[in-house]
Amino acid sequence: MSKSQSLLKATIGYELAPFTAKEFELRVERARAAMTRQGLDAVVVTSKANIEYLAGLETQFAWNTPSRPWYFVLPRTLPPVAIIPEIGATNWLSTSWCQNVKTWPSPRPDDEGITILKDYLTDIRGSFGKVGFEIGPESRIGMPVSDLFRLKSLIGSKIVDCTMLMAELRAVKSPAEIQRIRHICKIAGRTFEELPAMVSIGDSEKDICRMFAASLLLNGADKAPYTSIASGPDGYQSIIMGPTDRRIKRGDILILDTGAEYGGYFCDFDRNYSFGRPSETIVHIYDALWRATEAGIEAARPGNTAAEVFHAQAKVLTDAGIDVGNVGRFGHGLGKLITEYPSNAPSDHTVLRPGMVLTIEPSAMFGGNCIMAHEEDLVITDDVADLLTPRAGREITVID
Amino acid sequence: MSKSQSLLKATIGYELAPFTAKEFELRVERARAAMTRQGLDAVVVTSKANIEYLAGLETQFAWNTPSRPWYFVLPRTLPPVAIIPEIGATNWLSTSWCQNVKTWPSPRPDDEGITILKDYLTDIRGSFGKVGFEIGPESRIGMPVSDLFRLKSLIGSKIVDCTMLMAELRAVKSPAEIQRIRHICKIAGRTFEELPAMVSIGDSEKDICRMFAASLLLNGADKAPYTSIASGPDGYQSIIMGPTDRRIKRGDILILDTGAEYGGYFCDFDRNYSFGRPSETIVHIYDALWRATEAGIEAARPGNTAAEVFHAQAKVLTDAGIDVGNVGRFGHGLGKLITEYPSNAPSDHTVLRPGMVLTIEPSAMFGGNCIMAHEEDLVITDDVADLLTPRAGREITVID
Repeated sequence: MSKSQSLLKATIGYELAPFTAKEFELRVERARAAMTRQGLDAVVVTSKANIEYLAGLETQFAWNTPSRPWYFVLPRTLPPVAIIPEIGATNWLSTSWCQNVKTWPSPRPDDEGITILKDYLTDIRGSFGKVGFEIGPESRIGMPVSDLFRLKSLIGSKIVDCTMLMAELRAVKSPAEIQRIRHICKIAGRTFEELPAMVSIGDSEKDICRMFAASLLLNGADKAPYTSIASGPDGYQSIIMGPTDRRIKRGDILILDTGAEYGGYFCDFDRNYSFGRPSETIVHIYDALWRATEAGIEAARPGNTAAEVFHAQAKVLTDAGIDVGNVGRFGHGLGKLITEYPSNAPSDHTVLRPGMVLTIEPSAMFGGNCIMAHEEDLVITDDVADLLTPRAGREITVID
Repeated sequence: MSKSQSLLKATIGYELAPFTAKEFELRVERARAAMTRQGLDAVVVTSKANIEYLAGLETQFAWNTPSRPWYFVLPRTLPPVAIIPEIGATNWLSTSWCQNVKTWPSPRPDDEGITILKDYLTDIRGSFGKVGFEIGPESRIGMPVSDLFRLKSLIGSKIVDCTMLMAELRAVKSPAEIQRIRHICKIAGRTFEELPAMVSIGDSEKDICRMFAASLLLNGADKAPYTSIASGPDGYQSIIMGPTDRRIKRGDILILDTGAEYGGYFCDFDRNYSFGRPSETIVHIYDALWRATEAGIEAARPGNTAAEVFHAQAKVLTDAGIDVGNVGRFGHGLGKLITEYPSNAPSDHTVLRPGMVLTIEPSAMFGGNCIMAHEEDLVITDDVADLLTPRAGREITVID
């Protein structure tokens, strides 16, 4: 047995059941109800999050190469259709509940599915004369914009935004979705716990990230796309960058943050480590952030707003005389994207509802140019939130 | 020393030097010359590939969350500027050569950098009155489309495509870029070699992918976003899907394909494995594909077209009475994307030039619904191509 194999045998070692047909029926039903409320004849989705959410497709290919766009059209009343490159047909048919597939031989630069899409949108045109595409805030469309312009001139219907419609649908998670987020949080939690035994003074940030990501996979994650790291003497200066070639020294504070994926759902949380005994400043900042996180968890209740979750966290920091971080928010929605609607920010008055999954993520500025962040993931329930991550230690973890 | 640590110590264990300032000067100079030829006052890039290519930014954050767009504006004559969320300033300033940065406190849904972008584009408006955005074939823009529409109505300049301009620039690689692709090909080659010792009959496709991706990282890859797998008795039916929960049985043929990343550059190649002795059909198909790959490598010379590289491969298969695969092409450009311009397809008459990096990727249909693919990566030189991947075995690798 090889070394990798012996490592693998130590993994969580089980897979969750696939989503049921009923799960997708409910999603489609809710999507269609929203389309009726907002006056849309159809939505055309092209992004990983929304195609997976509505159609159940599982693929790496579509999201790793921009050569060929993939379209899923869900009309308000008529049958849905996948309009995809011929190379993807087997993949689509064997993973999606939707068996109505139209293909074209791609790459075909002068018509990457646009004629098929135009014909179908013309066929299903309804009384509203409006079709939703992912063009609004926080969206990234999964097709060339010039093809969207072209389509706009070819179809009678008006192209409007469906980003918020989809974000609202996805914001309240089903029990099966929550189970997946809980699973990946558990995997990442175990990996964070193992980290002190993996890293040593002298390791580079890059090598620590490689070991961390490899361990996430060997603990059962499907993908570990986001593993940011920062380190520095008595504090670090960014919570979103790295890895760099910098090697860890005694006295360093290190943060690792991860968005890892299982079954199409992400965790997003971080942990801080001190190489050797932390300074009084670090102890003070860590303590305030830990308490700010507690306050955020406590505030994350149905009926409260995302802004109130921000203010609850910020109050703990300002009461301790600490500047809030320059991140613009103290947590956000989480699910099929590492960051999704809503934002725990002063301007976001979204009312929290049971089933919403949020990160609680206070950050603090100190020592001139240092920042520290804490982060946990939770699900809103009828009462106090249900924590999905193993809670960070009351004191910073020391690696010696 | 932990198990992960002992694995890590077996890695390639070195990093390539960062790109020089001169490398970026040359890229900017070539970009500006292309802008002059095509009549553009500026390009505004938003995608990972093009921001990294022009500005040298290194970040995971920008590409893993759609909440905040990042813009890099390169005018034809005036100074470039990064227009980015405040949270990204430290990351930008410590990795990019461009130290001219304008930020806004994001998330700010009603103005995610659009006013700053509008002001700058107005300031630098030149005689052409045209600004390039990534809106053309094979592009994915890194901003909400509604913001592009809004910008269009706010600036006097016309918005045109710069996808092909950027693709053409990136197609011919510098020695330092080729070095990175060679490095990641070496890492993946080593990982493919180690695979037979890692996997066993009874392992699931999902667990094989996890081990494979973890090993890529522990061998020195920065990321392993694409690890597709397919398996089946005496052949598999897709070269782009998986992993599934399917467990490997004796008699299976398995393919693993990977786009792994080092220093912002990808490899893209695959290997086939037979669990137990392969059937005569498999031996026959493998042999033809191996020879088709040889023919593709041989045809990949300066002056030949991408279409000719396709036909050279296809001829070997049709001469052997084998149907060509339904992929639409037999390889493609490779570099900052797993698939980039050009396509080795009958319709693509791009003339090959020294410095272009291509995959050679013949595929064959057989047995009704089975497909098999081979793939290698190479760089076009003045004469015969320089292979970047360790060549696949002359016969299929048997795992027993």
